[in-house]
Amino acid sequence: MSPSVAELTQGILKGDIAALARAITLVESTNSSHFQKSNAIIDQCLPHSGNSIRIGITGVPGVGKSTFIETFGSYLTGNGKKVAVLAVDPSSSISKGSILGDKTRMQELVKDKNAFIRPSPTGHSLGGVARKTRETITLCEAAGFDTILVETVGVGQSETAVHGMVDFFLLLKLAGAGDELQGIKRGIMEMADAIVINKADGSNIEQANLAKAEFTKALHLYPPKENGWTTEVLSCSAIQKTGISEIWKLIQTYIDSTTAKDHITAKRRNQNKYWLLQTIEDQLKQQFYGNKNIKLHLDIMVRKVIDGEISPFTAAQELLNLAKKP
Amino acid sequence: MSPSVAELTQGILKGDIAALARAITLVESTNSSHFQKSNAIIDQCLPHSGNSIRIGITGVPGVGKSTFIETFGSYLTGNGKKVAVLAVDPSSSISKGSILGDKTRMQELVKDKNAFIRPSPTGHSLGGVARKTRETITLCEAAGFDTILVETVGVGQSETAVHGMVDFFLLLKLAGAGDELQGIKRGIMEMADAIVINKADGSNIEQANLAKAEFTKALHLYPPKENGWTTEVLSCSAIQKTGISEIWKLIQTYIDSTTAKDHITAKRRNQNKYWLLQTIEDQLKQQFYGNKNIKLHLDIMVRKVIDGEISPFTAAQELLNLAKKP
Repeated sequence: MSPSVAELTQGILKGDIAALARAITLVESTNSSHFQKSNAIIDQCLPHSGNSIRIGITGVPGVGKSTFIETFGSYLTGNGKKVAVLAVDPSSSISKGSILGDKTRMQELVKDKNAFIRPSPTGHSLGGVARKTRETITLCEAAGFDTILVETVGVGQSETAVHGMVDFFLLLKLAGAGDELQGIKRGIMEMADAIVINKADGSNIEQANLAKAEFTKALHLYPPKENGWTTEVLSCSAIQKTGISEIWKLIQTYIDSTTAKDHITAKRRNQNKYWLLQTIEDQLKQQFYGNKNIKLHLDIMVRKVIDGEISPFTAAQELLNLAKKP
Repeated sequence: MSPSVAELTQGILKGDIAALARAITLVESTNSSHFQKSNAIIDQCLPHSGNSIRIGITGVPGVGKSTFIETFGSYLTGNGKKVAVLAVDPSSSISKGSILGDKTRMQELVKDKNAFIRPSPTGHSLGGVARKTRETITLCEAAGFDTILVETVGVGQSETAVHGMVDFFLLLKLAGAGDELQGIKRGIMEMADAIVINKADGSNIEQANLAKAEFTKALHLYPPKENGWTTEVLSCSAIQKTGISEIWKLIQTYIDSTTAKDHITAKRRNQNKYWLLQTIEDQLKQQFYGNKNIKLHLDIMVRKVIDGEISPFTAAQELLNLAKKP
């Protein structure tokens, strides 16, 4: 028999990793009875959550995210932290987990008893994947993890989703990218609380410093964030394990300065509201697009709109009317 | 008696400005009988629309948008163009029209028989305001206007909405802003097809050149757009009427190069699809938040979520269930 809500909740609160993992499996399940159960567990864990620093980490493939998390996570556990590593990868439903699916890339951390690594949930839309990860944060915090790392890939809106669930957002970039700096993704500069130039080692060091200077200059174009924070640029080598303590110091400075101003509390409150409204909107869309009449007519209507046979507004009205029919 | 759909449509197609204005009033109306009528007019105008260059113009208050449009619009009519000036100002429902409400700021253009100026619709949400303006573009094109200028203020998502209805998006900036360049709004650099430094006159010229160089450098950080276009930086003085023909030349280069590659057609098709899906989503939300049970319980639930008494996901589910109750 599967453990009850009370058993799992008690297990989580005692820091039992097996109970935590089982509860996360319930959270990720698409079975509706699991849904009720996981909601109950989350609501009971809620009063015991929130006591962590939540850090989002993003960067294009090849920037060295896994190695960075391995090194950074080990540094943190070495300093007495309990670290949970989660991921939001909307492509994982197709590619069966392109990030964190392969724990072999984090060999040290995976053996570390003060670290918990969980791959991205799969089989959901981005909204679903992000929501599941957000719920998992609550469970990990209730289980005593005081540092949550949420990895994401720069695909579509996944960075926005992760930005909406963390306290600090870290953008990893490559050294030696020259003038173009590999192209900055839309909105990412404004989301980042820190930019870290990775692979600043060996013959790359000079180019890393150049990239650092260019990013610092580019960041002058942006106004300071609402909380007064100005995005910092650092460099590190995850492989050589250099520059890691500076990153952690910077995050602590951020947390200290913003906690002092109650900004993290305010940010988390806003994030909670965001998730409420976002979930409602996701579900409304899901209900609409899942409606059998809509499934039958949407493609035809989209084609007509694209071809200019009908205005998008008339088409929308017709589809909305169809959704109300039995 | 008010004119029929057929009368108004015929009037529009003959270029009758009175008929056009009356039809736009129907489009902007919140009366449901007007809604049917305006939808019918739009669908009949649709086959006669699309033959224009649609240009979006944005910039912070004080950058000289009205003067720019006055000068640029007069330049265009002087070159045989028929120019419609529209606006998306979501704040106008509160401030009673902060842009284009006062036609006295476009004294030349307002007297020009080849120009048609229409203030922003009011009394709607941003989604509504944008939708009405998008529909008005169709009517103006059917009435023979071959250049559509859509002005917007940099408030919330209004620039994204305007970007979604134009072929070319122009960001006006001020000369003499120094290093900070007045702070770039999130995503705006990626949306702009051109940045124009206005007020490049008198003692400002040197600073305008400096700003131009800085923007050009900053734009190197961004990859070229999907259509291969790289954002250009120009300067002008709307008051002195200098640099205006260069802007028009640039827009023509853009249109010519992208038309050749069928990109404008593809862009407009995607925009049509965007408006279909956007309208559906706006309406779904409007129905939900307009539901009497939701009106009664939303604020309490938001408060509970913000205070961490209930998870945003449980709260969303409870509200979604409430919306289905009679």
